[in-house]
Order: sequence, then structure tokens, then C-alpha cells
Amino acid sequence: MINWLEQIAWNEQGLIPVIAQDVHTGVVLMFAWMNREALQLSVKEQRAVYWSRSRNRLWFKGEESGNIQHLKDIRLDCDNDVILLKVEQQGGVACHTGRESCFYQQLQQENWVAVDPVLKDPATLYKK
Amino acid sequence: MINWLEQIAWNEQGLIPVIAQDVHTGVVLMFAWMNREALQLSVKEQRAVYWSRSRNRLWFKGEESGNIQHLKDIRLDCDNDVILLKVEQQGGVACHTGRESCFYQQLQQENWVAVDPVLKDPATLYKK
Repeated sequence: MINWLEQIAWNEQGLIPVIAQDVHTGVVLMFAWMNREALQLSVKEQRAVYWSRSRNRLWFKGEESGNIQHLKDIRLDCDNDVILLKVEQQGGVACHTGRESCFYQQLQQENWVAVDPVLKDPATLYKK
Repeated sequence: MINWLEQIAWNEQGLIPVIAQDVHTGVVLMFAWMNREALQLSVKEQRAVYWSRSRNRLWFKGEESGNIQHLKDIRLDCDNDVILLKVEQQGGVACHTGRESCFYQQLQQENWVAVDPVLKDPATLYKK
């Protein structure tokens, strides 16, 4: 039997792209990456743990903001190279700008326009 | 004024990851990549055109199966490096396996289990 981690087609950097979706509303919240350790920790703790490519370290989502993502469903795509997480988004805010979703810029006649409301002041999001 | 294409943070290969979501049901259908030409064509024709990294060419989604994705909303994330398409999925099937979504494998106690139904016989999907 193939180990569930071995079945994943990790990329050349040992990473897999991850989409996080709100399990209740269906809103696509954010996109990030995981390495093997991040995925194992996510499953073990039932919360999203990503690999930060900019900081080159594990990123326990919500570690500063408190906006933890509790895992409700973990999916793998047909090519075994993308993960979809269905999550309960604590605090209702996934984006560091204080919006529900990171995908708040809409293409309108050759302009990207911020169309979604800021729900929490980002200045207060990252105070412990 | 910054051109909307210049605003995008293309990766080292000149690509951007793209998530396609059903605009009506909220189901996350698939994940793929676009280069600049694919995105321009997508916007111009209002249907999803991806860049196939395996075939190294433009991939007009539905070109063989007829399962075209009609664009209803195009979003860019906070880092300008991921796109979310909200689409009308012609034929109701986005996956080459004949399922609605490519994310049909669910993690169940350390096993990936195919939990979503096959809606169309994949053998018939690719007959012109």
C-alpha cells in the first residue's frame, strides 16, 4: 500500500500548492504552499500549517493574528499535485489586509479594483 | 497608470497559478497555470485559456472535450501572484476523469479515497 504522503507529486522544491476554501460559504480564502512537514502537522493538529517560501520556515496560519484555519476536509486533485483544504476560518478573516479572502481585486476594464470590504483593521490584526 | 498585466507578479517561468471555481455552486473545479498570452486571450475571449506546462503550449480549456469555462469574474490576490476565475462550467465537468471537480480524492485516515461521482464516461469525453 502506498503511503498517503508518497502518493503526492511534490514539485522540484518538495512543495505542493494549497487552496483554502471556507467550508461553510464556499469562498476561496487564500493560496499557499506546503512541504511534507507542513502537511503532516496540518493533519495531526487539524489546522492549516503552510510553508512560507519568503520566510523559509513553517507558517502556522493564525500564529500572530489568531485567525486559525480549522480543517474540515482535505482533498487532492486528479494529478496528485494540488491540495484543497475546506476550513473553518476563525475570526472570519484570512487575508493580512483584514479582508475575508485574499482574492479581493477584481478585473474591471483593464484595472484591478479592490471590491471586497476590510472587516478588521490590519494594524490591529497582528498585535498579540 | 500601471498596465493590469504589469501589475501581476509573474513567477520565474513567466507563469501565474490559477484557481477555477464554479460561479454558481462555489465548487473549486481545478487548478492550472497561465502565461501572459493565456491571460490576455482568456480576457479577450471570456473563456479560460491556460498554459499547459506538460505540453508546453496554450490550452484552450474544452478544446477537445467541449467543456469550456466561461469567465464571469476574474480576481487577483493580495500579493498579485495568484488568480481566481469564477466560471460557468459548460457540460458540468471540469476534470478529465469525468468528474465535476478535479479535487475528488479525500483524505480518510491516511488514505486518499475517490469520493465524488463520475458524471461522464472519460472515454467519450475526448471524442470530437
